[in-house]
Amino acid sequence: MSNGKGLTSQSQDFSAWYNEVVQQAELASHSPVRGCMVIRPYGYRIWELMQAALDEMFKATGHQNAYFPLFLPKSALDREAEHVEGFAPETAMVTHAGGAVLEEPLVVRPTSEAIIWPIVRDWIHSYRDLPVLLNQWANVVRWEMRTRPFLRTTEFLWQEGHTAHVSEEEAEAETRRMLGVYRTFMEQWMAMPVITGMQTDTERFAGGLRTYGCEALMKDNKALQAGTSHNLGQNFARAFDVRYQTEEGEHTYVWSTSWGVSTRLVGGLIMTHGDDEGLIIPPRLAPYEVVIVPIWKDDDQRATVMEAGGSVRADLEDAGVRVHVDDREGMNPGSKYYDWERRGVPLRLEIGPRDVKADSVMVVRRFTPEGTDRKTPMPMAGVGSSLRTMLDGIQDELFAAATRRRDAATIRGVEDYGEFQRLIADQGGFFYTGWCGEGECEKKVKEDTKATIRVIPDEEFRSAEVPSLCLCGARSVCEVVRARAY
Amino acid sequence: MSNGKGLTSQSQDFSAWYNEVVQQAELASHSPVRGCMVIRPYGYRIWELMQAALDEMFKATGHQNAYFPLFLPKSALDREAEHVEGFAPETAMVTHAGGAVLEEPLVVRPTSEAIIWPIVRDWIHSYRDLPVLLNQWANVVRWEMRTRPFLRTTEFLWQEGHTAHVSEEEAEAETRRMLGVYRTFMEQWMAMPVITGMQTDTERFAGGLRTYGCEALMKDNKALQAGTSHNLGQNFARAFDVRYQTEEGEHTYVWSTSWGVSTRLVGGLIMTHGDDEGLIIPPRLAPYEVVIVPIWKDDDQRATVMEAGGSVRADLEDAGVRVHVDDREGMNPGSKYYDWERRGVPLRLEIGPRDVKADSVMVVRRFTPEGTDRKTPMPMAGVGSSLRTMLDGIQDELFAAATRRRDAATIRGVEDYGEFQRLIADQGGFFYTGWCGEGECEKKVKEDTKATIRVIPDEEFRSAEVPSLCLCGARSVCEVVRARAY
Repeated sequence: MSNGKGLTSQSQDFSAWYNEVVQQAELASHSPVRGCMVIRPYGYRIWELMQAALDEMFKATGHQNAYFPLFLPKSALDREAEHVEGFAPETAMVTHAGGAVLEEPLVVRPTSEAIIWPIVRDWIHSYRDLPVLLNQWANVVRWEMRTRPFLRTTEFLWQEGHTAHVSEEEAEAETRRMLGVYRTFMEQWMAMPVITGMQTDTERFAGGLRTYGCEALMKDNKALQAGTSHNLGQNFARAFDVRYQTEEGEHTYVWSTSWGVSTRLVGGLIMTHGDDEGLIIPPRLAPYEVVIVPIWKDDDQRATVMEAGGSVRADLEDAGVRVHVDDREGMNPGSKYYDWERRGVPLRLEIGPRDVKADSVMVVRRFTPEGTDRKTPMPMAGVGSSLRTMLDGIQDELFAAATRRRDAATIRGVEDYGEFQRLIADQGGFFYTGWCGEGECEKKVKEDTKATIRVIPDEEFRSAEVPSLCLCGARSVCEVVRARAY
Repeated sequence: MSNGKGLTSQSQDFSAWYNEVVQQAELASHSPVRGCMVIRPYGYRIWELMQAALDEMFKATGHQNAYFPLFLPKSALDREAEHVEGFAPETAMVTHAGGAVLEEPLVVRPTSEAIIWPIVRDWIHSYRDLPVLLNQWANVVRWEMRTRPFLRTTEFLWQEGHTAHVSEEEAEAETRRMLGVYRTFMEQWMAMPVITGMQTDTERFAGGLRTYGCEALMKDNKALQAGTSHNLGQNFARAFDVRYQTEEGEHTYVWSTSWGVSTRLVGGLIMTHGDDEGLIIPPRLAPYEVVIVPIWKDDDQRATVMEAGGSVRADLEDAGVRVHVDDREGMNPGSKYYDWERRGVPLRLEIGPRDVKADSVMVVRRFTPEGTDRKTPMPMAGVGSSLRTMLDGIQDELFAAATRRRDAATIRGVEDYGEFQRLIADQGGFFYTGWCGEGECEKKVKEDTKATIRVIPDEEFRSAEVPSLCLCGARSVCEVVRARAY
C-alpha cells in the first residue's frame, strides 16, 4: 500500500520524483548494505515478467541456460589485460572464509567472461561442438560510488549471454542478432523506443572488440543505456586458451560474444512512461493489467458486488488478463484508486451496486492519450475480450507516445559547438551530430557539456544528410548520437 | 555428448558411480574455485523445471517473490545468538571492495533471515499487513569442508521462503503447509517418496523453534534430507524487533517461518532413480521426455526419415511432450542410443527407412519395470497421445518402484543395540526405533554407528506398534527414523 504522500512533480525535480515513485509504488527499498537495494514483490514481479519474455526469446534463438560460480580467483580476472583494468577497481573481494584467511582472494563476479571461458574451454574440442550458446541469470557485484535504485546498484540482477563461434562473421552475426532481440523486447514489451548502434572505443566493453548498445531517452531528456551486446573477437579465447579443431584439422581460437540486460530495465520503464501521478506500466509487463475495486456501503451490497467482481475476474482470467480484486477492508475506494494509479496499473474497474444492477462496469484508464476518455462504462457481458483488446491498444499507444516524445526531443544537424552547448544544457535530448573520430575530442565535449557519444547509430536511424563537420570543426567521419546519460 | 567411458557399477562404488553420472550426463562440472560447481545446461534444465513447478505451487499458496541483498553486515548475523553460532563458522567474508578496506566486513548470505527481517520490519505496521508471505530464488554460500556436486557445494542455488504471522498457530500451519508442498513436489514430480516429520534439537535450524524435514532414501540406503521447513517462533522477531499492532491496539512480536529446497534435489533425483547405465529422469522433470534418433545410410534415406521424424516431433509437441531430434552428423545411431540412455531420457524413438515404410516407430523405454517390454513398435498415427499416456505411466512406475525399494530397505522394531549396529553397518536403510528423548543418547549412537535421527515421523508414517525401548535400553518417549545420511 502506498503511504498516500504526494509526489514531487517531474518538472520540479525528476530525480526526487523517481526516488519517490520507487518507494511509493513499492518497487524497491534501501538495505543496510550500502548501494544494495531490496526488490519488493511488486517490482520483482515486473522483473519476472521481463525475464519470462526474454528467456523465451533466448531459447527460441537456440540458447541454453547454465550456472557458473559467483566467485573467481583474482588471478583469473588478471588474464585479460584490458578486462582487469576495466573491472578490477570496482570489485568486491572475499579474503576470509570458513574461519580462515584464503590463500588467494576471491573476486565476486562483476561479469563472468573470466569464469566461464576457463571452464567451457574443456567442453569444446572440434568445430562440431560450436557454436556454444549459453545464457546465465545471475547476480553480479560492482562497487559503484554513486548508486540509485535499479539504475546503478552495487549488486544487481541480470542475464549474461556467452557464446563461442568458428568465425568472426558468425560471432558478429550473433552479436547483432541479440542486439535485435533486445530491441524487440524493449519496443514490444517495454513500449520503449531505442536507437541501436555501435559504441566508441571509450564506451566499449573492457576486453572486447566491438560493443553495440540500445539507447533510450528518458522523460527528463537524459539517455539510458538499456542493453549491450559485445563482439569479443578472439581476446578472451587467447587469454583463456579456448581453441577448437577445424574441419581441416587445424587448431584455432574461437570467436566469442557476450550480451546482457539487467534490473536497470525496470528503471528505464519507470522513466519512460511514469507521470506526476506515479508509475505507468505497459500491460505486457504489468503485475496486474486490471485491478477491480468493488464499492459497497453495507454487507448486502458487499455480497452483491463481490459476486459480480468474482465473475468479471473469471472472465478476464479466461481472456488471459492478469487481474486482481482489491478487497482490502478498512480502506475506502478513493484510497484504492489512488494506490493503484500510483502503482501504474493500466486499467481499473469500479463495480458498485448500481453497476451490478445495470450489468455494467466502469473502466478507468491509467494512460489517456488525447482523444480517449479516461472513464468508460462497459457492459459486463464480454468484458474479458473487450478489455484484452483495450489493453493491447494501450500497449501500442504507450509505445507511440514514447516514440513521439523521444522524436520531439531529438535534434539533428547542429554543427556549431556553442549552440550545442546551449541546447544540451537548456533542454537535453538526443543530438545527431558529426564526429571527427578522435577520442580526445569526445573527451573534451564530455568535460565541457557532460554529453557523451551514446552510439554511432545503425543505418536506419541515421539522418538523411550526415553532418559534414564535427563539433570541433574538423571533418566528420561519421554521424553520432550524443546525450547526457544515466 | 557423453565421452563414452563406462560407468562404475552402483554396487561396486556408489560414490564413484554418482560422480561419473554427474560428469558423463553433463549435469555439472568442477570449477577452479574450491567447492563451487558449474551447473551445465542439461543439469540446469532439470533445475529450471523444478523451479517452475515449485514456483507455481508457492504462488498458488499466496507467496510472492522478492529479492534481498547478497551481503549482510557482520553485526546483523550476530543479532540472534544461536543463529550466529550455527552459521558463522561457515561464512565467506568480503573485507575489501572498490579498492579499499571496508569499515565493517560483509558476510555473503548463508541464509537470509538476518537480512530480511531488519528490512521487512518496516513494511509491517498492523495486523492488516499480516501475513507476509515471501519467497526468494537465490544463491547462498556456506564454506563446507567436504563438497560433492549438487549434494553439498560451497555455493548453491535454492529458494528460501520467509513468512510472518499474527500467531504461533498460523506460523505452525504455514510451516506444515510448506512441508506438504515439498512432499507433493518430491512425490509427484521427482517420483521420490519421502518421510515427513520433526527433527530433534540437534538437527534443528539454528535459531528456530521447530524444524520439519522431508527424508528420502537413496539407492545406497543412505538418507538424504531433501527439504526443511522451520517454525522460527518469535526468535527472529525479537532479535530484529519485528512487531505489529494487534486489532486491540497492542504492540507485539510477529511469528515467523522459513523453508527451503536447493539444487541438492538434483542429487536426490540422481540417487533415487539412476542405475548402472546412468541417469533415469522422471518424465515431469526431464529436459527431453522423448529423443528421436533418425537412422539412415544415404542421403535419400536421410531425407525420408528426417521428414517422418519432423512430423512425429510436431505430433509430440502438440501433445505437450518435450521432444528433441538428435540429428548430429558423424555419429552412429548406437552411440546416440548410448548417450541418451546415460542421460536418462525416458523414451527413445528410433525411426529408420523400414519404420517409415510401415508407418511405425520403435519406442524404447529407459526404465523397464518387470512385465513391460523395453522395445515396442507403435503406429505413427496418434503417436503423440500414445506417448503422453506412456510417459505419465512411467512417472507413476518410477514412484512405485522407488517406494518399493525404500520400503524394502526399511526395518521396524529393532530394540537390541547390537543388532542395530550390525544391520546399519551391513545394509543401511531406514530404521524405525524407539528413542529415550536424550540428546546424549542420540550423540552416542551417532558416534558408534554414524546413524543419526532423521525425523520423529509424522503420524501416518509411524509403526502400528511404537517400540517401548530406546536403543540404549531406556523407556522410549517416541518413535524415530534413524539412518546414515548424506
